[in-house]
Amino acid sequence: MTMFGLKEASVAPLVRQIAGDELSTAEVAEHFARASWSGIAEPGDRVAGVLVGIAGAGAALTALVERWDADRLVAFVADNGGELSSEDARKALARWLPRLTSQTALVALRQAGRLGVRLLTPSHELWPAGLDDLGWHSPLALWVRGGEATLATLDRSIALVGARAATGYGEHVAMEAAAGLVDRGYTIVSGAAYGIDGMAHRSALASGGHTLAFLAGGVDRFYPSGHEALLTRIVESGAVVSELPCGAQPSKWRFLQRNRLIAAASRATVVLEAGWRSGSLNTAGHAAALGRPLGAVPGPVTSAASAGCHRLIREFDAVCVTNAEQMAELAPFDDKHETPDASGPASTDADEHRPEQLRVLDALSTRAPRSPHDVAARSGLSVGDVQSALGILQLDGRVVERERGWIMR
Amino acid sequence: MTMFGLKEASVAPLVRQIAGDELSTAEVAEHFARASWSGIAEPGDRVAGVLVGIAGAGAALTALVERWDADRLVAFVADNGGELSSEDARKALARWLPRLTSQTALVALRQAGRLGVRLLTPSHELWPAGLDDLGWHSPLALWVRGGEATLATLDRSIALVGARAATGYGEHVAMEAAAGLVDRGYTIVSGAAYGIDGMAHRSALASGGHTLAFLAGGVDRFYPSGHEALLTRIVESGAVVSELPCGAQPSKWRFLQRNRLIAAASRATVVLEAGWRSGSLNTAGHAAALGRPLGAVPGPVTSAASAGCHRLIREFDAVCVTNAEQMAELAPFDDKHETPDASGPASTDADEHRPEQLRVLDALSTRAPRSPHDVAARSGLSVGDVQSALGILQLDGRVVERERGWIMR
Repeated sequence: MTMFGLKEASVAPLVRQIAGDELSTAEVAEHFARASWSGIAEPGDRVAGVLVGIAGAGAALTALVERWDADRLVAFVADNGGELSSEDARKALARWLPRLTSQTALVALRQAGRLGVRLLTPSHELWPAGLDDLGWHSPLALWVRGGEATLATLDRSIALVGARAATGYGEHVAMEAAAGLVDRGYTIVSGAAYGIDGMAHRSALASGGHTLAFLAGGVDRFYPSGHEALLTRIVESGAVVSELPCGAQPSKWRFLQRNRLIAAASRATVVLEAGWRSGSLNTAGHAAALGRPLGAVPGPVTSAASAGCHRLIREFDAVCVTNAEQMAELAPFDDKHETPDASGPASTDADEHRPEQLRVLDALSTRAPRSPHDVAARSGLSVGDVQSALGILQLDGRVVERERGWIMR
Repeated sequence: MTMFGLKEASVAPLVRQIAGDELSTAEVAEHFARASWSGIAEPGDRVAGVLVGIAGAGAALTALVERWDADRLVAFVADNGGELSSEDARKALARWLPRLTSQTALVALRQAGRLGVRLLTPSHELWPAGLDDLGWHSPLALWVRGGEATLATLDRSIALVGARAATGYGEHVAMEAAAGLVDRGYTIVSGAAYGIDGMAHRSALASGGHTLAFLAGGVDRFYPSGHEALLTRIVESGAVVSELPCGAQPSKWRFLQRNRLIAAASRATVVLEAGWRSGSLNTAGHAAALGRPLGAVPGPVTSAASAGCHRLIREFDAVCVTNAEQMAELAPFDDKHETPDASGPASTDADEHRPEQLRVLDALSTRAPRSPHDVAARSGLSVGDVQSALGILQLDGRVVERERGWIMR
């Protein structure tokens, strides 16, 4: 295994700090190689995906350091059951070799260590399963700043995206959507951009929900800079994630590739407001290509800021969604998947609330919908307690909200 | 043939006046019977449709006047290859017999004669072909006030419907939609109600287009009364149509049945703005049931007045349409169908305009889109003349409007 000739002793502590104390020497080398590759290959580089996927990151890096030529790479991939044209191999080497230095990875690892950034590779249990659908275009590594446990909630996540140039209407819709989805237990995924993205994150935070931002550059530098305070808050109670190492600058290409991560990591994608050529349509395109449910929120036909959403509904079969309930229907919870979670730490909270939940259930009917106020009066609880109990019971599938109130299942 | 024992000499002049001078005695009787039936059976009465369809209106009326019982009716229908249960026949007789008087038809015919209302039966060349798709629920007769030639334009018509409680947004959308469709040669069909319907008619009139209103009561009394001036204008340059005889009051049932005429007579139906339970969704339902293209205009999700439109897009597969061009795509012109029309009376106008059309064609390019102003400058014609020539050429399929102007095919 190569680590660019660096001594294992100088690299291993750094790698173990950001990727896991329990890593073996071989795993350290593989993580270091993944970290290096995330700086050598641009996001979505298929040839890197093939090579690393087939040879392992360490062996693939060795091939680079040993200056294998294109023919040897092609033969090596073919021997291992893969496919690579010599033209692709030649071009890839021409892309990668200028970036072949131990410094980028070392600097990135040190910066990650300073900021508490974690390095995840596909073998990690928190690696988002949805990313595997990207195949050879899957990211080589993830750099995670904040609570990496947020990644575990991606199995109940919805991406809320939209234009930077949002209108008051769009921001209102984003706020309502994120709050309503958080109330239903969803994690909000977005790109931390100005406009719709930022409002979706903000509203999720305000509702005390999980939120996750995928960045187009390293997670050590927040972009856009005007969202530094917002991203700091996301780090505190959610996670900020990138496939690029610390120190990497965002670029147009990286924004487009970042969008594929948002689409792939989430169960569904909803475009809240987008002009005819908004970048969020790119995220929508990724979601559709991946077979992920795609929703779009309509708006006034007189508003150019909604033209992209209408286009998605008309031309790309996006589902017309008008509220959080309809968005949630795009990616319904799989209760069977939830049971293990519910028996974990979360169930402690549920147990604490049980008396209130029982009283709320007692106050509900299976037929006549009742408002939280009505239930509060019947149960002798405060409206706030009723609402939080209803939220938990709803997650458990015990109660359902109808147009004119709540009923028991 | 029965005419309630009325002397032919007293009825025939009246019938010939409103249904056609050239009618034979037998045809007079049949028209009189249809006129009677349109007052005896409620709109959409399937049993009346079966009986009149199988026996002819005159024979069916004779059966009523001669007080046939249910069994005889059933046997008669069966003998003629139809199907009718004795239960249905019994109930139908119970509905019809209380209304069996010569007076309603006579009064209606006299009133029609006074107001210049025309009586059309399915054998008339102007009978809208689309109504035949209603089968046994097809109207028994149409009472037409205004230019009955407007009926001939229904093969290029779009129904624009929506809620009475329209917002400024909805009215704006209706205005733009009707004007844009008129510009493309479409006839605007609607129900003359307050709100969206009224705006659609008004805008069609303002654009000098064809418009047709289906009423839920007799065409002698305009409903709603606040639209008396509007309906008077529609009579002057379009047509106001009902399947109910003069003197008939609108009712809830009749409004719902009127909606089926709007949907069936038009090539496509577009709901412009509608709340969750708007009556215009009923028209949409008829359109969908008839296999007619159905469009709905989205609006702000924060507007309850658009909730019905979003529902149509989400649940009923309505096409999301945001402008007149997209609405026109729902019911594109069939050029082959048009050719016979164009060789009829309308071609006289076309011939008169031919020099202007030639000059307009000379001023157009097959590639570079040109505005009417540009074409006016190039051809030496007025903008108005250019626009009217473009309209005729568009109907003939010789020119096409693109986003940035007109081109020649």
